[in-house]
Amino acid sequence: MNLQETDFFKNELKKELNLLEKYKERNLSLDMSRGKPSKAQLDISTSLLDELNSTSNFGKIDYRNYGINDGISEIKDVFCDLLGIKSEEIIVSGNASLNLMYDSLQRALQFGVLGGVPWNKQGLIKWLCPVPGYDRHFAVTELFGIQMINIPMKESGPDMDLVEELIKDESVKGIWCVPKYSNPQGIIYNDDTIKRFAKLKPKAMDFRVFWDNAYNVHGLYGYDPMLDVFHEAKKEGNEDLFYIFGSTSKITFAGAGVAYIYGSQKNMDAIRKFIGIQTIGPDKLVQLCHAKYLKNKDNIFKIMDRHADLLRPKFEKVIEILDNSFGDTGIAKYTRPRGGYFISVDLKAGTAKRTLQIALEAGVRFTNAGATFPYGRDPNDSNVRIAPSLPPINELIPAMEIFCCAAKIAYFEKKLGLL
Amino acid sequence: MNLQETDFFKNELKKELNLLEKYKERNLSLDMSRGKPSKAQLDISTSLLDELNSTSNFGKIDYRNYGINDGISEIKDVFCDLLGIKSEEIIVSGNASLNLMYDSLQRALQFGVLGGVPWNKQGLIKWLCPVPGYDRHFAVTELFGIQMINIPMKESGPDMDLVEELIKDESVKGIWCVPKYSNPQGIIYNDDTIKRFAKLKPKAMDFRVFWDNAYNVHGLYGYDPMLDVFHEAKKEGNEDLFYIFGSTSKITFAGAGVAYIYGSQKNMDAIRKFIGIQTIGPDKLVQLCHAKYLKNKDNIFKIMDRHADLLRPKFEKVIEILDNSFGDTGIAKYTRPRGGYFISVDLKAGTAKRTLQIALEAGVRFTNAGATFPYGRDPNDSNVRIAPSLPPINELIPAMEIFCCAAKIAYFEKKLGLL
Repeated sequence: MNLQETDFFKNELKKELNLLEKYKERNLSLDMSRGKPSKAQLDISTSLLDELNSTSNFGKIDYRNYGINDGISEIKDVFCDLLGIKSEEIIVSGNASLNLMYDSLQRALQFGVLGGVPWNKQGLIKWLCPVPGYDRHFAVTELFGIQMINIPMKESGPDMDLVEELIKDESVKGIWCVPKYSNPQGIIYNDDTIKRFAKLKPKAMDFRVFWDNAYNVHGLYGYDPMLDVFHEAKKEGNEDLFYIFGSTSKITFAGAGVAYIYGSQKNMDAIRKFIGIQTIGPDKLVQLCHAKYLKNKDNIFKIMDRHADLLRPKFEKVIEILDNSFGDTGIAKYTRPRGGYFISVDLKAGTAKRTLQIALEAGVRFTNAGATFPYGRDPNDSNVRIAPSLPPINELIPAMEIFCCAAKIAYFEKKLGLL
Repeated sequence: MNLQETDFFKNELKKELNLLEKYKERNLSLDMSRGKPSKAQLDISTSLLDELNSTSNFGKIDYRNYGINDGISEIKDVFCDLLGIKSEEIIVSGNASLNLMYDSLQRALQFGVLGGVPWNKQGLIKWLCPVPGYDRHFAVTELFGIQMINIPMKESGPDMDLVEELIKDESVKGIWCVPKYSNPQGIIYNDDTIKRFAKLKPKAMDFRVFWDNAYNVHGLYGYDPMLDVFHEAKKEGNEDLFYIFGSTSKITFAGAGVAYIYGSQKNMDAIRKFIGIQTIGPDKLVQLCHAKYLKNKDNIFKIMDRHADLLRPKFEKVIEILDNSFGDTGIAKYTRPRGGYFISVDLKAGTAKRTLQIALEAGVRFTNAGATFPYGRDPNDSNVRIAPSLPPINELIPAMEIFCCAAKIAYFEKKLGLL
């Protein structure tokens, strides 16, 4: 860098630091860290709570009582309509699909998959992790001591050449996928990626794709089509490879929805045997409320349109501020998701932590840098996950302005060798 | 047996067989197999469903949204009042305490207890099982391949001499207990038994008593006191030894209640770390409904009085029929529980299966003989669990009369060498 450039960066840094001081004077305390729905979104579905009361009919078999381990028929009907599957292919549980994923992994470790050797008895187990990805997925595999391998995400989905290469290793037992509006980039896996998943022939017979289709109906601009991996896998006779997850956490209530796992009847029957011992079954009244409220696929789409109307302006505002701040400076690259809950920003290598530290000092908390990578380690210290859903737009604006200011400061510091 | 006796038994058998034919002509189809509450019992708490609706206040932190892993403060307050514990000592979850037990066992197997070596890595693990006991407990330990050891139940509780002897073996890691109105005998552990539990010093540092106090407030004649094992254990500095479980399954709704685990803060903090990774937390709206409805200990007692009013006549009718049928014939010994959900009948050795087969042919299903023992094997083929709660009294009467008739037939068949 020549003297002229140095002076330019010093000058720019000074401008941003002055701006930051102005922000600090506002004594803000804003939280951009969690992918939570806003109050207005929760209000969309609050009439769900009017669906059951003391005068209701509780079903032929009384849903207040014991019985039924894998979900009531009414809620299965709704999800079968939504997902294009048969009722034998789904298990509907409580409010947390994360718990279904955790339990599926724990079962594979303790008991094996479809009669295979328990993973606990197979030595070191490895797992493919498209990055950046969902921190809570990675936390589960880390807890179980499973070795996580980063798979770069491309615009089409995970790097399938690498996936196809790595699954030749029998100790590689699975992969985390958020195929639609991936967390955090909002990428939709393209047809080629999904067809390659459907054809995947891992060395390990007990390999499972953990297909967390959390944002299936969570488009910002209506329902975006995505090739149905389960349907494609059936064509290949490969349907046992997939555990597919979803929930109503971001359709009805984030903390009080219903979750499901679906897949081949063979897989589901095996799981049913275990949950028949593990539990007395899910809360059937919550499921009944949901069935009455959600009704069918078309009605779910209508509900999701209302979510989109609340989320879209927030996403667009974030993108607008990023565009205005960074333009083609090259300071940041970011995604323009058509759905989901996040925007992924890649800052210059080595500046993500510093950026979020500066933002925090100015009163804005973001998801920790590194959180989107296994073990919390972003090898480039570059990725930041932006969660626009929770704050009202009047908080979102200063939060993002501070973020951009902080990113520039970190960038200029880096350029000047101060980092 | 002399000829006179043989003739007597043949004659008695004939009488009972004639009686059975009469029952068969009625073409009954009755189910006495499950410890389910009746519809009238479920109706007691149906106003719980009116506690929340779309106009409700959802808490300072919005309980519809994400957040809180171990239960909302309102429901913890209710249970802390009921149980005499602190909020740090309890975790409130979904509807199934069985799931809490299963998960506690699975965690110990996979991760160890409080930093100890995972049970999965300690070779053969053994478990003490007071018998007869609860089939679903035994199903969990069996699934995990844990070797179950029968501990005879006495009127005071489990045979504590045997328990104290067996826990000298480091591979013995736990014991199932239903301390109050034990399933199926309805025994209340006496003070001496509970004090000995509180003082237990197992060789295995990672031994845990799974204290399933499922029927804590489920008296038929008001609240029966029982020494508080957690309180006693604290006196001994031995509180880490206990995982204590309970639920509202038989207070509010069997299939849609809330469940809890409580114990030392050390134990609970360790569990919280895991559930923070396993799940997004319990359904907080269900917990809020329960907190509003249950209110406090005194109100729970009032609710339980209403259950008792429905259950007591059924229990007393069963006992009356048993008394009338068996008197002091010695054909059957049975308990006279003051609470809980079951009556335990010990028939003459070798006649339980046959009795239930005869009853089934006459249209009455009971819990399988053997179900109350580990591996479904009653070494004496003697014990039968009677579940009086579900059927209306007009079904209970013929069901029990058929049971008694069947037991006599099996008894006489045995006497005559026909079995």
